[in-house]
Amino acid sequence: MRLKAAALSAQAFADFGEVIETAGHSPQWINEGTSQRFDDLSPVDVLAAGGRPLISIFRASPRPLPFEVRLLERHPLSSQCFVPLDRLPFLVVVALAGPRPTASGLRAFVSTGGQGVSYRRNTWHHALLALERSCDFLVIDRGGPGANCEQLPLDAAVTIT
Amino acid sequence: MRLKAAALSAQAFADFGEVIETAGHSPQWINEGTSQRFDDLSPVDVLAAGGRPLISIFRASPRPLPFEVRLLERHPLSSQCFVPLDRLPFLVVVALAGPRPTASGLRAFVSTGGQGVSYRRNTWHHALLALERSCDFLVIDRGGPGANCEQLPLDAAVTIT
Repeated sequence: MRLKAAALSAQAFADFGEVIETAGHSPQWINEGTSQRFDDLSPVDVLAAGGRPLISIFRASPRPLPFEVRLLERHPLSSQCFVPLDRLPFLVVVALAGPRPTASGLRAFVSTGGQGVSYRRNTWHHALLALERSCDFLVIDRGGPGANCEQLPLDAAVTIT
Repeated sequence: MRLKAAALSAQAFADFGEVIETAGHSPQWINEGTSQRFDDLSPVDVLAAGGRPLISIFRASPRPLPFEVRLLERHPLSSQCFVPLDRLPFLVVVALAGPRPTASGLRAFVSTGGQGVSYRRNTWHHALLALERSCDFLVIDRGGPGANCEQLPLDAAVTIT
């Protein structure tokens, strides 16, 4: 099965989480009119079960298209947010909610590189997929006790193009 | 009074907060060896007094050097973290702890653009200072009740060069 990745947008991604971007948000002017604040772009849902927010950097190796998706993961205790630090496009692969991810429920999006994503708690998603070259992402997720990563294979592999 | 900005480093910034960067940190290999995780680069101290973590984007107008510093601020209820999204250098101006910021306690640093900063709770700092052109920063700070911004003038203006 093949699936063509679509452009990432807040509307297209609404079932899975938030797009971290300035587009579509009205800023406040702050700092004596020298900065615009695009405020509160995504919930940070990381405090369940004794959790705390973590700030980390992920450095991702490129995985060019076409890319075969076999395994997804989800985090039952937290959201997880990825914001590109190199303005390079990356691939976002998610699946509709359910006890396991399915090929028919798979969705794929390409970020412009100026868009981050925050996966809502329990959203099935693929691990980070840089496209063009090795690049860095700021990640806001959860530290703390408890098992917070569930991984399951798709019922059938899907090639993203 | 004039002050020459120094290169930003974790060691030089230790009295004021953390530098968000990969340098000096040993990553874990994750995602089947396709990504490196530089984990937990800064405390996120935002939960006091009913606070919650906020993710925002600030778009900062450039303020080229030399730049005259008159007014600093601090946040009594939280840390505040700025990570550049355009890999452009920016100016970091802080002052040693005390009831008010002083010219003699002022310190200035230039980030490479690959370095973010997290101001520790109650650290006197200047509002965001882009240098070359308008650019974006991911900001992790606090939402919630309570007065969380105190602003005071320096006892004497300082020109950063």
